[in-house]
Amino acid sequence: MGAKTDHLRQLLGEIFDLNAASALLSWDQQTYMPPAGAEGRSMQLATLSKLSHDMFVSDEFGEALQAAQAEVAGQPPEVDDAALVRRAARDFDKQRRVPSEYVAEFTRLTTLAHPIWEKARADANFAHFRPSLEQIVSMRRDYAAFFAPYDHVYDPLLDDFEPAMPTKQVKAVFDALRPQQVELVRATAERGRKVSDAVLHRAFDVERQWTFGVEVIRKLGYDFNAGRQDKSVHPFTTSFGVRDVRITTRLDPKFLNPALFGTIHETGHGLYEQGIAVHLDRTPLATGTSMAIHESQSRMWENFVGRSRPFWVAFYPRLKKLFPESLGDVKLDDFYRAINTVEPSLIRVEADEATYNLHIMLRFELEMELMSGTLAVKDLPEAWNTRVRDYLGIAVPDDAQGVLQDVHWSFGGFGYFPTYALGNLVAAQLWEVIEKDIPDLTSQIERAEFGGLLGWLRDKVHRHGAKFYPDELLRQVTGQSLTPEPYLRYLRAKFGEVYELH
Amino acid sequence: MGAKTDHLRQLLGEIFDLNAASALLSWDQQTYMPPAGAEGRSMQLATLSKLSHDMFVSDEFGEALQAAQAEVAGQPPEVDDAALVRRAARDFDKQRRVPSEYVAEFTRLTTLAHPIWEKARADANFAHFRPSLEQIVSMRRDYAAFFAPYDHVYDPLLDDFEPAMPTKQVKAVFDALRPQQVELVRATAERGRKVSDAVLHRAFDVERQWTFGVEVIRKLGYDFNAGRQDKSVHPFTTSFGVRDVRITTRLDPKFLNPALFGTIHETGHGLYEQGIAVHLDRTPLATGTSMAIHESQSRMWENFVGRSRPFWVAFYPRLKKLFPESLGDVKLDDFYRAINTVEPSLIRVEADEATYNLHIMLRFELEMELMSGTLAVKDLPEAWNTRVRDYLGIAVPDDAQGVLQDVHWSFGGFGYFPTYALGNLVAAQLWEVIEKDIPDLTSQIERAEFGGLLGWLRDKVHRHGAKFYPDELLRQVTGQSLTPEPYLRYLRAKFGEVYELH
Repeated sequence: MGAKTDHLRQLLGEIFDLNAASALLSWDQQTYMPPAGAEGRSMQLATLSKLSHDMFVSDEFGEALQAAQAEVAGQPPEVDDAALVRRAARDFDKQRRVPSEYVAEFTRLTTLAHPIWEKARADANFAHFRPSLEQIVSMRRDYAAFFAPYDHVYDPLLDDFEPAMPTKQVKAVFDALRPQQVELVRATAERGRKVSDAVLHRAFDVERQWTFGVEVIRKLGYDFNAGRQDKSVHPFTTSFGVRDVRITTRLDPKFLNPALFGTIHETGHGLYEQGIAVHLDRTPLATGTSMAIHESQSRMWENFVGRSRPFWVAFYPRLKKLFPESLGDVKLDDFYRAINTVEPSLIRVEADEATYNLHIMLRFELEMELMSGTLAVKDLPEAWNTRVRDYLGIAVPDDAQGVLQDVHWSFGGFGYFPTYALGNLVAAQLWEVIEKDIPDLTSQIERAEFGGLLGWLRDKVHRHGAKFYPDELLRQVTGQSLTPEPYLRYLRAKFGEVYELH
Repeated sequence: MGAKTDHLRQLLGEIFDLNAASALLSWDQQTYMPPAGAEGRSMQLATLSKLSHDMFVSDEFGEALQAAQAEVAGQPPEVDDAALVRRAARDFDKQRRVPSEYVAEFTRLTTLAHPIWEKARADANFAHFRPSLEQIVSMRRDYAAFFAPYDHVYDPLLDDFEPAMPTKQVKAVFDALRPQQVELVRATAERGRKVSDAVLHRAFDVERQWTFGVEVIRKLGYDFNAGRQDKSVHPFTTSFGVRDVRITTRLDPKFLNPALFGTIHETGHGLYEQGIAVHLDRTPLATGTSMAIHESQSRMWENFVGRSRPFWVAFYPRLKKLFPESLGDVKLDDFYRAINTVEPSLIRVEADEATYNLHIMLRFELEMELMSGTLAVKDLPEAWNTRVRDYLGIAVPDDAQGVLQDVHWSFGGFGYFPTYALGNLVAAQLWEVIEKDIPDLTSQIERAEFGGLLGWLRDKVHRHGAKFYPDELLRQVTGQSLTPEPYLRYLRAKFGEVYELH
């Protein structure tokens, strides 16, 4: 390792420490902080993020970066130093382009917009939120302008979440995917309501749900020596370095899914962070490389593993034993179908595996149009409702269950949504390779043995942290760029069987 | 409020936020952090404390301070701005006098000394720790030299914990106290072993201990909306602002005292911090004014309230109900005597109320001699053992139970010990005024009504935070400087009754 890069690494280490402290402040806010602490906490978070930003965009940092760039010039990202400098340079360039006045103004705008959105949603009244959203959209276009020239005005926004992934690539993939996924959902609907998730809505003691969850994630390989699980209203994963990666879950006494699949989902995120090579710790490479790759890990464990039949061959006896009253009369096959029920619904976060991407794609399309200016904010609710009808075949009764349902736009998070769907696609793309590399994967899972799968993910994905950009990583591991085909094959095979389609 | 002081307040606010984040990192380390997080955590703490220190001793801060000093010149500390500037100036001056090379070197030394002390204690071998302690003593004398001229070489050390409290004042008070406290302990010992705490060593279900503790501290007035209680190996109180003040406790299934009196003790600290005026939040005044005043609050609630007969008139029926197997045969009077057993013992942290100060005074004396150079480190064990015999009447079997028992010297915390004893004295001095101001205090406590007492403490002590130096506060509230008489009267009255002395 070179001396110049070591100096850069030291500065990055201090910034990392500040960000880790911020992450702990946020974790605490969502788990244990007493209510009256909220105001002080927001000051603490603001101060730490300001300090971290100031250190990062400082001239001192810029000079250290330049020196390190000269040192690693010509080296590929396989070399740790080169990958580190590349990532730092990218982030530095992005943050230096955005004036601090813009950041302050945008923070002020979205801080005010959040409660306005909350009230609008409570009242199912889009008109109340519209002026705020118009300003937010306008400011997000200003943001994109800092990165001109660009191929698509949406590119700089998407790039914040998916480094080096152009809008046109995502659009092409979604355009190929959407009609086929719409068709699949339609086909399941035409089979009638023969599959139901009613048994999941029975009574489930929350302490036993917790016990089961902990048993499962231990088996999956989550390391409690380097992490912990707590409860929070909105489950999340956070880390303060690769040796302290924490997840949260929530428990619903009348619905098994949140704890069951939520826990496995967050474990997927947690396993990724815990699997990053220790020597990358305390650098910007000590995290998942993008939202989509992160989501591929959580969705793979949640759906490809956790909603598979072999998984429940292993775990259903134990689950049944924990909940004899509610599951005593439910056979494995019926349980398996229940957790794989497909039913078009209004709310994204409650959507099933087969319809979920359709929720995402309509948001992605609307975001692109808003940013391009081909859709005005005032016309957004109608555009929303039309797409929900087209893609999901259902009517939106009011804006609370439609255009106002998600928090993302209130904080200006344009570019975020597509990563959820990309995660599913990436998971499928990886899964096809995994199935080739581990021929007896099914029987391993039936025996609750996940070492083979986790070892593969560690080797191919986790240990690299953020060394490679998402599409680089995909090509490296699967031999090709992002493609929708594996995911379509997966959906067709799975739901073709569950719904007995031909 | 003046503009210059407001600018200073803003800088102090950012430093406060950084320190609050550090406090949360420490809280988490002692409550929830997974083991593997330790290394990263120490880096995060080091970075935050370095940043906080750099901001504080910066020229920018110095200039802001100077401007504010001019603005508040001539105003008394009753004025918030004046108190704030005075305190900030004091801390700034102290920190600027200490070269950063010294801080780095001392941190390195004590970081290395800690495991050496741990091993020495485990092996009961002082010789192993001696070279480290010699260096530490030497460096603490260097530290004092930064503050020359001084009246006593111990002054600058004590001042870190007790602002503006000179060594000679503490020495005079202790010299008056010691012979009389030694005499009292001797008198109780001569009565024989008629009082015993054996019943406290029975089996006590830890969950019920927790329940009882929470019931008690709610009644005392601890605000769970602005605080919480968790478990930790070493109980402590911490705060991240006056609206988020947390305490911890520990539970022993075979001994009632740690949870019982430990919980009330920490609650005393917590009530102090929660009672600070909200408008002082996010400044250096948003904390207790000194260690001794802090300890006066914890010891008052723990001993003057929690070990009093009226308190148990209120709470013993409930405690008995929670532990019918272990306390069913124990009458209130017997329980009261059990929790007030006096017995000279070797270990400070396990000492009872009547002997505790003797442990402290011998440490104070040895520290002064070490600092003055009249006692060499090599002669420390013998000096220790001699004093234990003189003050407590018992022999020290080995250094682990003697001179090596406390962690404080391994981190260079000279000047810290006396504050523990001063806290007891201050508590008694306040208590005599409280008893005059609240004539029916006893019957209030018998009814588990603590609003009168807490209201008094809030008004006279808590709300001021660190506005006044400890002796200023004492004179303001009690009409006189620190004095040992009230504490001696309290001890004589209480143990005279428990031990039926004349």
